[in-house]
Amino acid sequence: MKQVALITDFGNKDWYAKVLSGVITNLCPQATIIDITHQVPPGNIPSAAFILENAYRYFPDGTVFVCVVDPGVGSTRTPLIVKTRQHVFIAPDNGVLSNVLTHSEPLHIHCLENPAYRLSPVSPTFHGRDVFAPAAAHYLNGVPLESFGPEQSEINILPWPSALAHGNKLQGEIIYIDHFGNCFTSITASDLAGLPKGEQEVVLPTGEKLHLSDFYQQTPLGQPLALIGSGGYLEISLNGGHAAHSLPLRLGDSLTVQVIGSSDEF
Amino acid sequence: MKQVALITDFGNKDWYAKVLSGVITNLCPQATIIDITHQVPPGNIPSAAFILENAYRYFPDGTVFVCVVDPGVGSTRTPLIVKTRQHVFIAPDNGVLSNVLTHSEPLHIHCLENPAYRLSPVSPTFHGRDVFAPAAAHYLNGVPLESFGPEQSEINILPWPSALAHGNKLQGEIIYIDHFGNCFTSITASDLAGLPKGEQEVVLPTGEKLHLSDFYQQTPLGQPLALIGSGGYLEISLNGGHAAHSLPLRLGDSLTVQVIGSSDEF
Amino acid sequence: MKQVALITDFGNKDWYAKVLSGVITNLCPQATIIDITHQVPPGNIPSAAFILENAYRYFPDGTVFVCVVDPGVGSTRTPLIVKTRQHVFIAPDNGVLSNVLTHSEPLHIHCLENPAYRLSPVSPTFHGRDVFAPAAAHYLNGVPLESFGPEQSEINILPWPSALAHGNKLQGEIIYIDHFGNCFTSITASDLAGLPKGEQEVVLPTGEKLHLSDFYQQTPLGQPLALIGSGGYLEISLNGGHAAHSLPLRLGDSLTVQVIGSSDEF
Repeated sequence: MKQVALITDFGNKDWYAKVLSGVITNLCPQATIIDITHQVPPGNIPSAAFILENAYRYFPDGTVFVCVVDPGVGSTRTPLIVKTRQHVFIAPDNGVLSNVLTHSEPLHIHCLENPAYRLSPVSPTFHGRDVFAPAAAHYLNGVPLESFGPEQSEINILPWPSALAHGNKLQGEIIYIDHFGNCFTSITASDLAGLPKGEQEVVLPTGEKLHLSDFYQQTPLGQPLALIGSGGYLEISLNGGHAAHSLPLRLGDSLTVQVIGSSDEF
Repeated sequence: MKQVALITDFGNKDWYAKVLSGVITNLCPQATIIDITHQVPPGNIPSAAFILENAYRYFPDGTVFVCVVDPGVGSTRTPLIVKTRQHVFIAPDNGVLSNVLTHSEPLHIHCLENPAYRLSPVSPTFHGRDVFAPAAAHYLNGVPLESFGPEQSEINILPWPSALAHGNKLQGEIIYIDHFGNCFTSITASDLAGLPKGEQEVVLPTGEKLHLSDFYQQTPLGQPLALIGSGGYLEISLNGGHAAHSLPLRLGDSLTVQVIGSSDEF
Repeated sequence: MKQVALITDFGNKDWYAKVLSGVITNLCPQATIIDITHQVPPGNIPSAAFILENAYRYFPDGTVFVCVVDPGVGSTRTPLIVKTRQHVFIAPDNGVLSNVLTHSEPLHIHCLENPAYRLSPVSPTFHGRDVFAPAAAHYLNGVPLESFGPEQSEINILPWPSALAHGNKLQGEIIYIDHFGNCFTSITASDLAGLPKGEQEVVLPTGEKLHLSDFYQQTPLGQPLALIGSGGYLEISLNGGHAAHSLPLRLGDSLTVQVIGSSDEF
């Protein structure tokens, strides 16, 4: 099985995203390609890193992930191929692999330098087509990592917001907003498990307090709720509506979780 | 041939839609997946039911349709696998299969209960990933229907607007608006065939009257028209424009078809 | 390898685009399908022609391109199958193949007339489903070109804006705006190469002058720039932003390139 999964900010209205499929199938006809998304906000590396984190573990072992959110295309940032125990990641060295590499240690990191495994000429504005997609195809064709270019020991890792614990409280922020308007926070299920025993409530920036629900319809239609989402993050949602628009909430907004009735020593 | 076709409201900007492809290809590497659409308006079960109705008959026999528009995810609504003579449908029991099952009788309906054919743990907010997608893969791998869970005899069928005939008139309503702004009505070609002989005209909510065209360019550019669309429904369109925006028309708007020159006894 | 690549204006929210995949895989189960885009602006034939031009050369030889931007569907315009040395194109005879056929001469052009290779009945509003998709599948199944219908010697070619040279200046216009807001001009790298020696600058409609960059980050964040894009066209971009919105620029806007310091005899 030769599977490639793509994450880019190329959008779906032009030819960019699917030219990658053309290049890959031209070089490796047996490859199958899954377009995870091409709708990362343009140049938004943290969004792409978060999407990859939430997606990759559900794909077959050996899947080659190509992640091209690359505002520095053509500059000196290095194109890389990274092998972990179960997967392969091909991306610019700009932090887009940060989240996934905190869960899954890189075994080998090689630069994509060898012109034999690039298209020629290489456009300085479309390395997705000319560098990253060909690397995926050649890797699936059996080219060994060391043939792509020299090994390097370091890779850029972006800082990522995490929850801050203060006694019986946690402070976090909104880190991602999905298609439904669900607002992901930087607070995880294990952060919540670390709080003192007691019923937990979420305090929104407006002061509004939400109890934790298990699923959307546990809360009346049109009402906000907090729950642990399918990726293990605390999310703020609205049953039957768009939480980000209606509450409203924005990326970077901060919120707290507190244990009810415990002393308030924040 | 092991083909899965997906209809969801997951959108295309996150990882949700394509994680289903990851799960399916992980469990059944030979599966091919067609994403019919992931842009059903969030939670809009009738839209998903109508899309499925218009799509399914053009797919190969044996295609497994996975339809996840599921505002009740995590609640008591039952996840189902339904077999008809030619296809298999996997969906929550919330009416999303209504339209297709009026055309194609269900032979067997089983609950998706067996934890062996779910991911573990099952998130209460993402049964698409943890329940429905795995069921499709396991079915394609040969798991018999009865292994998924107990058979049930009933399934939820939603009421669906149909045309009302009154002598030489038909009354209908707008039931779907497509990407081009074409407005589907609840009036079908066979409803029109049941009218008394004579030339037919469509009366819009504004009183504007339209003759029936065969195709768009039979009407001058920028003008509205009515025609029998490719799914057998009477549609209101605008040659070279967006009928829903320009006329305007909205879901639920009512309109009539009358036979010209016949007595008006509506 | 039996690969089909699709370009349409069907959008992604309805069933239209993927019903083509259903029809193709029903008739030719081994076919693999790449959806280049379904987001051509409705009825915009030049956009589709430009997308096809930029995409097709990156696909494997033998790929069958199905291009359905077809405002005249149901009228007298002819559905065609066109063979070039390396590829096959299936489209209405409305100019959508113009750009690609200026690069790649048609060897054979046949009408799609034979009802044996159409679905039945043919809807007058959905030839994508009933005429074009079945033709792709039957061609991949080995049906010879002459079986589809009579050969014709001519095909509609649309006029396409090109750069006008006046001494040390070139005049061009905006011909396409992509997802990122990059504005493609009708001026190509080879047009620029034909100018007298000297440093070149681009003069926008506002009078603002831009030097040519090699890549986006060569220009400060938030600043406009001009560069030769990955398809060989001169593009106007904004590092970290959306040039079309911010400058602003629109389709059809004209601009010039001049050689700095040379006499200004435009």
